[in-house]
Amino acid sequence: MSNVQGLAADIGGTNTRLALVENGQVCEDTIVRFRNADFETPEAAIDTYLTTAGHPVCGSAVIAIAAPIDGTAIRMTNHPWIFNARCIGKVLGGAQVQFLNDFEALAYSLDTIDPSRLKPVLSPERQLRSNATRLVVGAGTGFNAAALFRSSGVDLVGTGECGHSTLPIESEDELRLWTYLARNRARASVERALSGNGLREIYEWQCLDNGEVAKTYSPADIARLANEGTDPICVAAALQWVTFLGRVIGDLALVFLSLGGIVLTGGVTRSLSRFLNEPEFEAAFCAKGRQRDLVSGISVDLLDDDFAALAGCAARM
Amino acid sequence: MSNVQGLAADIGGTNTRLALVENGQVCEDTIVRFRNADFETPEAAIDTYLTTAGHPVCGSAVIAIAAPIDGTAIRMTNHPWIFNARCIGKVLGGAQVQFLNDFEALAYSLDTIDPSRLKPVLSPERQLRSNATRLVVGAGTGFNAAALFRSSGVDLVGTGECGHSTLPIESEDELRLWTYLARNRARASVERALSGNGLREIYEWQCLDNGEVAKTYSPADIARLANEGTDPICVAAALQWVTFLGRVIGDLALVFLSLGGIVLTGGVTRSLSRFLNEPEFEAAFCAKGRQRDLVSGISVDLLDDDFAALAGCAARM
Repeated sequence: MSNVQGLAADIGGTNTRLALVENGQVCEDTIVRFRNADFETPEAAIDTYLTTAGHPVCGSAVIAIAAPIDGTAIRMTNHPWIFNARCIGKVLGGAQVQFLNDFEALAYSLDTIDPSRLKPVLSPERQLRSNATRLVVGAGTGFNAAALFRSSGVDLVGTGECGHSTLPIESEDELRLWTYLARNRARASVERALSGNGLREIYEWQCLDNGEVAKTYSPADIARLANEGTDPICVAAALQWVTFLGRVIGDLALVFLSLGGIVLTGGVTRSLSRFLNEPEFEAAFCAKGRQRDLVSGISVDLLDDDFAALAGCAARM
Repeated sequence: MSNVQGLAADIGGTNTRLALVENGQVCEDTIVRFRNADFETPEAAIDTYLTTAGHPVCGSAVIAIAAPIDGTAIRMTNHPWIFNARCIGKVLGGAQVQFLNDFEALAYSLDTIDPSRLKPVLSPERQLRSNATRLVVGAGTGFNAAALFRSSGVDLVGTGECGHSTLPIESEDELRLWTYLARNRARASVERALSGNGLREIYEWQCLDNGEVAKTYSPADIARLANEGTDPICVAAALQWVTFLGRVIGDLALVFLSLGGIVLTGGVTRSLSRFLNEPEFEAAFCAKGRQRDLVSGISVDLLDDDFAALAGCAARM
């Protein structure tokens, strides 16, 4: 039984990632990923992790959750788990527990990311101001974003529930798709399209629209078939998906004026990375009328690191 | 010729407001409003103001501009004026010149606003956290927003070019209106609807849609006739306008998680204040699916003060 600075956890809608922290850094060899579905409660997942790690005594815990953080009891948007600082603290032998939004943690990790983990998607040649705002955006089980502001040497992250804002559409075809995504729901949010389920529903709608019967593909199946180029409907779904992504991150770039660049993350984004190089993505990103030049000057990179939020937790410990 | 701390200026797409500052406060009796159209350059407007004020010696100047602030030469989005810190400093006898975005200045004024200037629009009974993010949103010549974040006693404002993000639509009628607003432009931004010109174009489209010939009304005419309730098409245009406003600020509330409340400002918003009490506004604001409860808990107030951005400039001097 050893003493460590603390525990970092990143709890998404499908997976939980855990690691021990020393000197504000994640101990790489302690990183573990669990499927949420294998545990009844977050306490059970943490308890299992601590047992496997030989019951280290954690001074504190920083837990990133895919949920709006407001108070000490957190309810996830895309998963039934509920988080209570006191209950988690008990499992940790009385350690102080701090909650972050998972995208807040990702934004705090931006300064520590190994550059080799960033794959350039759009690389305009623009002189960056050192204090320019940076944005991290991701699509996986859900969709969200966070901005890292820097002012007079102070870092501050702004994050919310971006995925629940209105899905922006621009044509009759997209309105019909929007209406399909909104069925039984009154509206379609960004997340109804820009998530794994969203990719599946876009595929289903493309089948419907082409008079074909949709197969029972998972989002991963659709991404694989689109990447292979063998199924034209999967390809069309992927192109529509990155069109929405380009449009939404272009809008967010304007809202946050993220002249410091955009970092893309999330399992579904990574699974469709090939399609970020298609002209549809850049066209939708830059199509901002009089602000086209402003947005065209913003770099976009894809983060190839599923554990970055843990580094953000460690940085805030 | 007296010495003063400095000059505050708020330069919108139509009007310029100027005031002298002492001890970080606007000197109320020195506030003047000019029409931009009456001057060739911002330097000419400032020079005229200083002459009228008896040539005070200003230690510094903080100038809020309706434009993205990036560097020392600023180009406005909705007006041909160009701003250069050196040229303006020369008119001010060598004073140090600092530029802010006009919504950045508004956000910095939020803490100093006289509560009697805030008219409640939506007042849910929700316990606010003292460090919750606040949002200021306004529609006048253009549209924009800024968030005031508070973290560990540090205030930081995030602002961008919200008005140029995609206008969110949710029905066939709105798509036809969107297409009308987008004519000759490829797309319709938020600002194409949520501005004075936007109100006029929504009115024109309502006329077209009802088979009537649009009159050559100004946005102020349309707001007046809508408020009087005598012209049903002006009323319909006003209701559509506040529906867009409700939807857009609901989206921004999610993006920024502005649990500290939303303050509405801008000449067009004020001119349609009666319609903020119509059910269409609240319905559009709260229609956020699984995040309805979150958004419904956010207060909305209307700021009845055309000079608030000057107080924000003074606070940053």
